[in-house]
Amino acid sequence: MFADRLIAATRAHGPLCVGIDPHAGRIPDLFGGDTPEGLENWGIGVVNAAIGKAGIVKPQVGLFERHGWQGMKALATVSAAAKEAGMVVLMDAKRGDIGSTAEGYAAAYLAKNAPFECDALTVNPYMGLDTLEPHVRVAAETGKGVIVLARTSNPGSADYQARDMQGAPLFARVVESLAPMIERLKGDTGWSGLMLVTGATGPDEARQLRTLAPDALFLVPGYGAQGAGAAEAMVGFAPARNGGNRREGGCVNASRSITFPKGASNANSLDVWSEIVATAIDQAQDDLNQTSSAR
Amino acid sequence: MFADRLIAATRAHGPLCVGIDPHAGRIPDLFGGDTPEGLENWGIGVVNAAIGKAGIVKPQVGLFERHGWQGMKALATVSAAAKEAGMVVLMDAKRGDIGSTAEGYAAAYLAKNAPFECDALTVNPYMGLDTLEPHVRVAAETGKGVIVLARTSNPGSADYQARDMQGAPLFARVVESLAPMIERLKGDTGWSGLMLVTGATGPDEARQLRTLAPDALFLVPGYGAQGAGAAEAMVGFAPARNGGNRREGGCVNASRSITFPKGASNANSLDVWSEIVATAIDQAQDDLNQTSSAR
Repeated sequence: MFADRLIAATRAHGPLCVGIDPHAGRIPDLFGGDTPEGLENWGIGVVNAAIGKAGIVKPQVGLFERHGWQGMKALATVSAAAKEAGMVVLMDAKRGDIGSTAEGYAAAYLAKNAPFECDALTVNPYMGLDTLEPHVRVAAETGKGVIVLARTSNPGSADYQARDMQGAPLFARVVESLAPMIERLKGDTGWSGLMLVTGATGPDEARQLRTLAPDALFLVPGYGAQGAGAAEAMVGFAPARNGGNRREGGCVNASRSITFPKGASNANSLDVWSEIVATAIDQAQDDLNQTSSAR
Repeated sequence: MFADRLIAATRAHGPLCVGIDPHAGRIPDLFGGDTPEGLENWGIGVVNAAIGKAGIVKPQVGLFERHGWQGMKALATVSAAAKEAGMVVLMDAKRGDIGSTAEGYAAAYLAKNAPFECDALTVNPYMGLDTLEPHVRVAAETGKGVIVLARTSNPGSADYQARDMQGAPLFARVVESLAPMIERLKGDTGWSGLMLVTGATGPDEARQLRTLAPDALFLVPGYGAQGAGAAEAMVGFAPARNGGNRREGGCVNASRSITFPKGASNANSLDVWSEIVATAIDQAQDDLNQTSSAR
């Protein structure tokens, strides 16, 4: 099951998820710049730099989709390379639609032999539980995961998610209604592959969600470039269920701070660039591992 | 501006929007069946059958994305064909993400020379106003539109959208907060290209939204195969602002009832298939036009 694969990756390497976010104008000329080929080469470069250092990657679909179908082709190649390298791939597409269309997205990302290879897909709950159901059904069949937006890391999360809906914030209403789906995607570790997005910029909300959904894995954005530190990012983590030293229960994403670190943009060779990125990955992983080991 | 183009299309032909939804297993062998080529040929067939009968089409992105980047390539070709035929293209992708990623989606669909040609993009408001802003900013620059999910047509719209948030349903809270964006995308007709999705299956909610947002165009799904009739679909329409006979203020989508009508699946030639689909388009347009003319 997806939950077990993700937990195994964090126990082996730490909770870092390497975000593969090809922002406009940021891809070094070394890889071909801001072109579909540049995105593909750079994304594979990130995957290679992460081997042995991080077990989870998260491609940001919108930043590939900028380049049309050619960008989506680059996305498919990068994801396949990450799977080939044995990594857990979280596809950050934030899809959501009525049942018959949700089946299309599930076929694209979660089905057996889906064209975009990955282990889990981010989805948006606004349209209701029947729009999440096709994703959960297919994920249960294929041993993949479904990552539901709960409380995101951006300032706009205050506009609706955090507002009171009949005695609790909307994000809590969403999560309480997911309980049966969380149960359906549980793995052998006891963790569930019905994962929740809960931003590092909202540690109080993460605590609240951990109480509401003790077994759901968390995907935590907002660490690093978006401003939150390791301690804030990991408040929703829990004692390791295998008795290990480090707290666990999800992964913490970092993108820009790792894939566009100081010095990387003008590295004059792939070796130099890879070394800079690998060092940034090690530093983030160490920062998170130290925090998760503190009692 | 987008709003003016959409209103011109409905004044010329009627409020029908032809949904281009290539459901799995439904593409006739005539076009190549359920393959990327089949989707492309069929989608172009739908566009050609609609010429002179409907001015608006809405490709359902998830049903193209099923086929990976090759499906997205078919989507790009079909959309370009619809634009070439002078149609208003509403891209039904329901995207939504934090600002820097939203810029990626805006670049994919709303920017000048975007790889996926269209007039407007559907977006999901769950993550907040800062996630809608990049879409509105780019749309204002390029004269395109942004279609925000308010109250969708599926049963799950009751789960969160219709629940009370501090004295009003969530969908109403979303729409009231959109007022400045509605203003920014207003065209010469007085209608706004900040369009709202309001399902035909919720006529009471459509009335409520028309009061809250008198100038926002409505995109109404749920007519036809999803069960609502023309009268329910058009309760949010208003007297024509140019003094014309027919009520106006948006468009009504029909997909399966038009593009997979009885007899179409086993038509033995493109001419026969086109005639069957064109007749279904005429019937839906007539049904809607009669309703919008009734006083």
